Amino acid sequence: MKREYELVENAVGRLVPTVVNGKEQVPYMGVAKHRPEGRKAAPPIASAADYPADGDKVVKDLRTALEAAGLKDGMTVSTHHHLRNGDFVANMVFDVAAEMGVKDLMWFPSASFPCHARNIEHMDSGVIHHIEGSMNGPLGRYCSEGRMRGMGVLRSHGGRYQAVQDGEVHIDIAVIAAPTADPFGNANALEGPSACGLLGFALADSQYADKVIVVTDNLVPFPCVPWQIQGNYVDYVVAVESIGDPEKIVSGTTQITRSPDRQLIAELTARFVREAGIMRDGFSFQAGAGGTALAFAIYLKEMMKEAGVKARFVRGGSTQYLVEMLEEGLTDYILDGQTFDLEGVRSMRENPGHVWTSPFTSYNYNGKGFFGTMVDVVVLGATEVDVDFNANVVTHSDGVLLHGIGGWQNCLFSKCTILPIPSFRDRIPVLVDEVTTLVGPGELIDVIVTERGIAINPARRDLLDAVRGSDLPVRPIQDIKADVEKIVGGPPARPEFGDKVVAAIKWVDGTVIDCVRQLP
Amino acid sequence: MKREYELVENAVGRLVPTVVNGKEQVPYMGVAKHRPEGRKAAPPIASAADYPADGDKVVKDLRTALEAAGLKDGMTVSTHHHLRNGDFVANMVFDVAAEMGVKDLMWFPSASFPCHARNIEHMDSGVIHHIEGSMNGPLGRYCSEGRMRGMGVLRSHGGRYQAVQDGEVHIDIAVIAAPTADPFGNANALEGPSACGLLGFALADSQYADKVIVVTDNLVPFPCVPWQIQGNYVDYVVAVESIGDPEKIVSGTTQITRSPDRQLIAELTARFVREAGIMRDGFSFQAGAGGTALAFAIYLKEMMKEAGVKARFVRGGSTQYLVEMLEEGLTDYILDGQTFDLEGVRSMRENPGHVWTSPFTSYNYNGKGFFGTMVDVVVLGATEVDVDFNANVVTHSDGVLLHGIGGWQNCLFSKCTILPIPSFRDRIPVLVDEVTTLVGPGELIDVIVTERGIAINPARRDLLDAVRGSDLPVRPIQDIKADVEKIVGGPPARPEFGDKVVAAIKWVDGTVIDCVRQLP
Repeated sequence: MKREYELVENAVGRLVPTVVNGKEQVPYMGVAKHRPEGRKAAPPIASAADYPADGDKVVKDLRTALEAAGLKDGMTVSTHHHLRNGDFVANMVFDVAAEMGVKDLMWFPSASFPCHARNIEHMDSGVIHHIEGSMNGPLGRYCSEGRMRGMGVLRSHGGRYQAVQDGEVHIDIAVIAAPTADPFGNANALEGPSACGLLGFALADSQYADKVIVVTDNLVPFPCVPWQIQGNYVDYVVAVESIGDPEKIVSGTTQITRSPDRQLIAELTARFVREAGIMRDGFSFQAGAGGTALAFAIYLKEMMKEAGVKARFVRGGSTQYLVEMLEEGLTDYILDGQTFDLEGVRSMRENPGHVWTSPFTSYNYNGKGFFGTMVDVVVLGATEVDVDFNANVVTHSDGVLLHGIGGWQNCLFSKCTILPIPSFRDRIPVLVDEVTTLVGPGELIDVIVTERGIAINPARRDLLDAVRGSDLPVRPIQDIKADVEKIVGGPPARPEFGDKVVAAIKWVDGTVIDCVRQLP
Repeated sequence: MKREYELVENAVGRLVPTVVNGKEQVPYMGVAKHRPEGRKAAPPIASAADYPADGDKVVKDLRTALEAAGLKDGMTVSTHHHLRNGDFVANMVFDVAAEMGVKDLMWFPSASFPCHARNIEHMDSGVIHHIEGSMNGPLGRYCSEGRMRGMGVLRSHGGRYQAVQDGEVHIDIAVIAAPTADPFGNANALEGPSACGLLGFALADSQYADKVIVVTDNLVPFPCVPWQIQGNYVDYVVAVESIGDPEKIVSGTTQITRSPDRQLIAELTARFVREAGIMRDGFSFQAGAGGTALAFAIYLKEMMKEAGVKARFVRGGSTQYLVEMLEEGLTDYILDGQTFDLEGVRSMRENPGHVWTSPFTSYNYNGKGFFGTMVDVVVLGATEVDVDFNANVVTHSDGVLLHGIGGWQNCLFSKCTILPIPSFRDRIPVLVDEVTTLVGPGELIDVIVTERGIAINPARRDLLDAVRGSDLPVRPIQDIKADVEKIVGGPPARPEFGDKVVAAIKWVDGTVIDCVRQLP
């Protein structure tokens, strides 16, 4: 019997479902308020007696592997987004499942991209029941329109590790696309035509799934060294012609913003980091691969050189710009979670200054600490921010679910979180009274940098004091918002939603912080 | 109520206890006959909310850490033998426990050495109830004499991982001695005054123990890179003056045998590997750090150079001799489990041809395969071998428990297992009718090389055929044994044991293969 959900108000005043896809939920209780109970998930004990003594786990094709792994109706199958919008493997999996006549699968991707749009057919035909995982683009819209049978569940990278570790999501079969692998299942993403850097998003799956299949287009003799996925967790290996389209896996080069407004925002952000005293010897920062974040890193780099300051570590996504900092001795290490361009992949292969991290090391909240809290300053994006500094990254003001959470929620735990954002986009204000979807609580968001000024969270008196007397354009967030509304003619129209909840938004500890409603 | 054990006969005809330290046992059923049931052990779920946000887990001393970890009567506390006979930390732990007035602890070392003899006092006084783990030297004798309150349990390196993974041993508190660590608990053994190479014996403990304490004498700023133990598993970090005596941690250099008999045995072993066709391009071998094994490696190396043959990998314990092979291009990789001399540590720090392995990757039988089965030939020692090729490594013919199993049982799964051994020691025959303690079943032991000839297990017709026509002195094992008995005047006297079982010997799958009785 399918349990129905009710809606209850959580600690940030959002109505959230009490049951998601048949599982009882804990509503969000506030930052560091919820304590998990019980013990971690426990996969079945295997025996080497059931695996080939010569270590050769290669089977002839993906169907053979999925059949051997016992694929059947209602199972949960996971894939990963290391190959981003160039991935072929997640589509192969559900094509084979369709061929096999299997139904009602839960697809548990670390993220899905527009290249996975054909899985919409598999949802329409009943092969896939629903998706729990980031849905970028068309799959997000499909979910928003209420066409998916189950509820979407969005988790951060750390939250996905947490959910698997804690047994909230039991993966029956994990399928890991690996740019290089050996017949035992050891795998990495450093070599091969589809090299993409790292395989950390599949770590939890390899550790906790009942069955693990590695799919590669570059099979090498044992041992595949270094291994990022350990063959000792792997059941079957499949060699295919190609696992992805290299042109879409990593950018040839990452692109810095050319917009003068975005450049101004990036420069203000870097200046804030300097003026607030964060940029000091041995500090650390994280910035993504978006155009503004890249520009920020370049401004900061110049300021660091000028001041003779060296970082202890930078958290990646590696890009050519971070690689330059490493090579110029401006940081001891890059702590990589993924890799965004070819220079990043090359450097990761060659330079031991790259430290491989994973959602377990960097982001898992239900662990004995995580690296994210040790980062001095992190620079992130947002689709909306409200006057209480709550922020949204998954929907736009029109209510359409178009983005995943990524590591965004996990990064909020840094010592200083800055959102450099334009104050409006396409004449729609980004600063609002109330965010459409609350993904990050305002108490963790410290600074908003716009082209019209810098707003500091009033709770961070220390930051307000630190930049007092500087020539930075610090202003109350309400003032910036009022300016914008004057320009565009008022606040954005609120979308009209249906009643149905189409997706739940998880907080890093597994509680439900908000949900997304069906579009009319 | 303490459950009493009975003795039942297992698949190799040994009487073994049905209950060990209150836990039901499965008697050994034969190679690859037992299938484990159930799921892996599941440690408690933690929350980052309970750990310092700045990542600094350093507490002022070991007592503080043990108190914070909740040390109390009857708990299981683990330590490791990375620092071998130079370790200070295992003694510190029980000295503190004694100070705290804690009683009845189970000590679960990966191995104990003569340097830990003072823990005999802590057993006499009741602080330590019993030891499950390798007992080398005085602690083994203490156990043999029936003075320990609980039963000793000997496990292979792989069996120790298996026991922890499968929940047979629940570790309450793991104390990991780390030559280098950061305040978050990331640790390695590559740098610092006590550098010893690797920390793999503590892997299971870090993953599965309720609480994990890292003790270091070389605290470095975050991140300690590369990490061998992940700080995300660590609760507390303690900085001490010194964790060990460098002179006793690794040898300055490893010593090759000078005995002409042993050299002959080593040479015959290498010639066997060549003549049997095992030494071919892309092959792999494992040899330990004993004098004969080292001499074997040197002979083999010369033969490889002569024949123009290159190995794909060598399994270590790295020594200067394996390092030379790597540096001379005679092998692509060394797959290291530990490191036996300073050259090994240096090379491991500098040469990416060293691949770090652990009991999980190389030896864990209750997993999805393990590396040990992929090794073409392994060269091991033994204290006794019987005419059915069963072998003993833990007791001598006088019945005294003096050695641990190490990786020995796990290595038996290689494609060809060779025991190069003298046919007698101190006028006591090594070849016997029945081994005192059966640690490795004859069906996995392929070749015995003595100074009086080579005995091939009749079950290995392929090996007998492969060396037919060579000038190797191949003889039936009974003939060699008869020769020896003629020289020394008969088979060794059988020791007279008491009734009490003082130690259980586990097989790699967790079943009980034999036991050790109390000395009279």
